[in-house]
Amino acid sequence: MANRNPDTTSTRRILALTDGVYAIAMTILILGFDAPRIPVESGAFAGALVRMSPRFLDFAISFFLLAFFWIVHHRQFEHIDRADGTLMWINIIGLMFVVTIPFSTTVYAAFRPLTAAALLFEGNMLALGLVQYLLWTYVTAGHRLVDKDLSRRHIAATRLAILTVPIASLLAMIVAFVSPGNSTLIYVLLPLVWLVMRIRR
Amino acid sequence: MANRNPDTTSTRRILALTDGVYAIAMTILILGFDAPRIPVESGAFAGALVRMSPRFLDFAISFFLLAFFWIVHHRQFEHIDRADGTLMWINIIGLMFVVTIPFSTTVYAAFRPLTAAALLFEGNMLALGLVQYLLWTYVTAGHRLVDKDLSRRHIAATRLAILTVPIASLLAMIVAFVSPGNSTLIYVLLPLVWLVMRIRR
Amino acid sequence: MANRNPDTTSTRRILALTDGVYAIAMTILILGFDAPRIPVESGAFAGALVRMSPRFLDFAISFFLLAFFWIVHHRQFEHIDRADGTLMWINIIGLMFVVTIPFSTTVYAAFRPLTAAALLFEGNMLALGLVQYLLWTYVTAGHRLVDKDLSRRHIAATRLAILTVPIASLLAMIVAFVSPGNSTLIYVLLPLVWLVMRIRR
Amino acid sequence: MANRNPDTTSTRRILALTDGVYAIAMTILILGFDAPRIPVESGAFAGALVRMSPRFLDFAISFFLLAFFWIVHHRQFEHIDRADGTLMWINIIGLMFVVTIPFSTTVYAAFRPLTAAALLFEGNMLALGLVQYLLWTYVTAGHRLVDKDLSRRHIAATRLAILTVPIASLLAMIVAFVSPGNSTLIYVLLPLVWLVMRIRR
Repeated sequence: MANRNPDTTSTRRILALTDGVYAIAMTILILGFDAPRIPVESGAFAGALVRMSPRFLDFAISFFLLAFFWIVHHRQFEHIDRADGTLMWINIIGLMFVVTIPFSTTVYAAFRPLTAAALLFEGNMLALGLVQYLLWTYVTAGHRLVDKDLSRRHIAATRLAILTVPIASLLAMIVAFVSPGNSTLIYVLLPLVWLVMRIRR
Repeated sequence: MANRNPDTTSTRRILALTDGVYAIAMTILILGFDAPRIPVESGAFAGALVRMSPRFLDFAISFFLLAFFWIVHHRQFEHIDRADGTLMWINIIGLMFVVTIPFSTTVYAAFRPLTAAALLFEGNMLALGLVQYLLWTYVTAGHRLVDKDLSRRHIAATRLAILTVPIASLLAMIVAFVSPGNSTLIYVLLPLVWLVMRIRR
Repeated sequence: MANRNPDTTSTRRILALTDGVYAIAMTILILGFDAPRIPVESGAFAGALVRMSPRFLDFAISFFLLAFFWIVHHRQFEHIDRADGTLMWINIIGLMFVVTIPFSTTVYAAFRPLTAAALLFEGNMLALGLVQYLLWTYVTAGHRLVDKDLSRRHIAATRLAILTVPIASLLAMIVAFVSPGNSTLIYVLLPLVWLVMRIRR
Repeated sequence: MANRNPDTTSTRRILALTDGVYAIAMTILILGFDAPRIPVESGAFAGALVRMSPRFLDFAISFFLLAFFWIVHHRQFEHIDRADGTLMWINIIGLMFVVTIPFSTTVYAAFRPLTAAALLFEGNMLALGLVQYLLWTYVTAGHRLVDKDLSRRHIAATRLAILTVPIASLLAMIVAFVSPGNSTLIYVLLPLVWLVMRIRR
């Protein structure tokens, strides 16, 4: 456990904190869902579930975007040998945009017809994507903190994969000025993009 | 930490995320329970606790089903040597059905007399069970990601153990059309089934 | 990671799940505290904080009892080499009584003058203590799952330490029939008992 | 896993519990934020977001102070070889002041104009900082639990870094008697202090 290099540290606990924050954020997404407060009566209940269905889609989109960012983090840190203070703080800024996602998802679900609500949600995803991009740029510049034989091609492929979410977010933010309630559907196309990228690799 | 095989990764962080999600879902099940909002007066309090007792059973059923799925996951990953992208996403889809369980438990507890509420709860368990089944089928097909000397008999025994929950869920969903409020009692019989399976092995 | 002994497994993930559940239960204890819903006005706020003060004591008692049980678990599993299915389920039953503590703490805080509320809280602690005792008895009987050279004296000392909480809980439950609101003060004496036990060892 | 020294234990699980508690506290900070309860209408929504903006600053301050304390803990435990019972309890007292931060943040956000609310928040940070200081003093006194060749200079630098938060908290508590709502802005200056300290080292 004892580490004698004062400038870099092992990544083990950074991963523990990060995995914990992702696990909690992914689980409490659902806390924004209350059981419908209606009389216990069949017709009303079915109606309430139907009215909640767009919120389930919002939940699923947030859940899978968080999962994507977690996988990106996982792929990044498989090649990161050690951490310095800058990496630690970039990672923490990223976590800040992770923990705000349950809030921005709940707000978007409640105010879907409003452009500002869509921009809040998509801006959150944009910010998280940009921080992950910054993190990757920082650690790979001159192979600062990644293992020495990591290929330029792998670095570029990871960078491109990370950028899909900020790009989709920017597109969604443009659509949000016209149709806020449908703008997040752009994220539904992302799995296709990832699949194509993976096949081409 | 550095991993040079670009197609598979270690399972360590998948387990960290999964254990975190299970721990949180099992703990926040209880957040659906508010302290009774009644005057501080002995008779009313005892009555409120008695009225809550079916909800405690729902909580216990969900808790032990989650624990069962966690143990299944534990047993599966003891034999999984490495992960690929497909396994990672199957696992994440499984986690999605884990995090919805506190919600579907709360809804079932509040709307127990309704068939739709029972179907929601039991459908959630069915879905989680089927994803675990799919995961096992994927990793064991041609020993794709499990260790090479894992016996066919062990693979089949695990598959059968996983299937107990989807089968119980389907039975419960049939009963739910007649008696939604009692349909989840079928899950109470599962420990007996597991005990018999373990003895026969 | 691959484990070929079908009857026992490593304890690593049991510890991960357990540490997660304890961490969450200890953290969400505080979620039972809402910010006072009063006008923003100095006198009223100070009064509200003073009225909340017994609840802070309840929170602190629950927090430190959970911490004690976590330390007991830590000490137990330092000597447990491997796990079997029975140990896994005993541990899960213990976790069930961990996750109910935030609920029984909130109920006790809200209904302190009632004997039933005190019995619920103290009964929860009693149950958790007894499960930890059962776990220790199971793993140490004939050195079933603990390392072979663990001394009888160490086993007995751990057993005695575990029993302090069930004994204190039983005393508190007797006091609860006379003075429910003060019965949990018995737990405040426990640190002294632990200190004495440690000095005598 | 088996540990034969009865007086000290490995730090692994202490770190697991601590990382879990920090991850949860950092994530549930945001649970104090409800989606605004207003009609779905553009002007009102923008106004509600603007009114919430000081709360976002409170959230960010608490998040980064928690992150700072987590990094301090990380740096401390890189040099701590083993744990004894005293260290374990000091660490748990520290965790108690971690889990209360979401509560004191929510209270401060709701009652910002009141000196008592600011003192509660800043007192919480002061207490957490002093416990971290105590922990460091305990483990480093005579190199009690840190590795033998840890330099006095490194020990002193860490002590100084820890003290920045209690000092800032005391200053903030003085300001709170004049301007409670602005007193936490002192914490915003801390990153500059940390940067200077790091450059000088």
